[in-house]
Amino acid sequence: MNRDKALRVVKEQLTERRYVHTIGVMETAIKLAEIYKVDAEKAELAAIFHDYAKFRDKEEMRQIIINQKMPHDLLQHHDELWHAPVGAYLVEKEAGITDPEVLEAIRCHTSGKINMSPLDKVLYVADYIEPGRDFPGVEQVRESAMTSLDIAVIQAMKNTITFLLKRNQPVYPDTFHAYNDMTMKVKERKLT
Amino acid sequence: MNRDKALRVVKEQLTERRYVHTIGVMETAIKLAEIYKVDAEKAELAAIFHDYAKFRDKEEMRQIIINQKMPHDLLQHHDELWHAPVGAYLVEKEAGITDPEVLEAIRCHTSGKINMSPLDKVLYVADYIEPGRDFPGVEQVRESAMTSLDIAVIQAMKNTITFLLKRNQPVYPDTFHAYNDMTMKVKERKLT
Repeated sequence: MNRDKALRVVKEQLTERRYVHTIGVMETAIKLAEIYKVDAEKAELAAIFHDYAKFRDKEEMRQIIINQKMPHDLLQHHDELWHAPVGAYLVEKEAGITDPEVLEAIRCHTSGKINMSPLDKVLYVADYIEPGRDFPGVEQVRESAMTSLDIAVIQAMKNTITFLLKRNQPVYPDTFHAYNDMTMKVKERKLT
Repeated sequence: MNRDKALRVVKEQLTERRYVHTIGVMETAIKLAEIYKVDAEKAELAAIFHDYAKFRDKEEMRQIIINQKMPHDLLQHHDELWHAPVGAYLVEKEAGITDPEVLEAIRCHTSGKINMSPLDKVLYVADYIEPGRDFPGVEQVRESAMTSLDIAVIQAMKNTITFLLKRNQPVYPDTFHAYNDMTMKVKERKLT
């Protein structure tokens, strides 16, 4: 699907504000893809569709999680996490996106996971640093993203976990496992 | 085993400084046990022996973890975690402590775990707040411990996880599972 068509499809699903965010993520993801030698077309497509399910009805999302046998513990955690895996499902079903790498990047773009692919990392970081984002720590992640995609992912995850801890919110296990996985791999690379 | 005998046995295993810490943990654990209606004799015994393996040779600890089929991921994490499960094993083998609740409190006193018992929590918090402890956030946990054992555990875990994140250290999975478990249970109690 070309960019214009994809943007038209996704625009119908989003608020104006969220559509502007999506454009920011798209442009940032393409830049990061070029820096880190990731397929820029896949990065563009994943970015355009990453928030496709953001405004779906909560009950519809809950039913999709149950019926599609997605991890049950999603339902015990904040519904802010649901739109990512539900989005991957709906983007395939409704928008006809079939590339498994693109769908997987959408699926894990909020939580992260163990063994993130370079495309997963590009979308995760682009979503965190796109120009419209403005929260404590974002500038540091923007700078890191220019020199190390992995360090940028780790910093974004640390910020997210710390944010949740301060509010006594539980942390979705995939996020913690992703943080551990990434910090251990970066440490190993430094040691070898 | 009575207190004097237990203290004599453990004193041989510890530095003077760590022995003083152990006395502090013992006195604090007894106080907490009284407040929260936990068996004070078990709390005393668990506290006296909690750091029994603290100064064991790292290679000996590694071999015990492997031979006793303890969770293998311990070896991928900081060796500071090892003395707790290894201690539980050695305290049974060498000091003849057989009470499973006491051994379990020793086993999980550094990492925490899902479904901590009141005795586990008493030791975990006592180890964190005993009078010799002096680090950022300890005073807040001391105060909380007088009114809610669960809130004190959650605060101590949050401090520990935040400390590790700041240093780009991985977090042992049991610790964040324990944090999630405790925060979710406290939330549920507030909702019901």
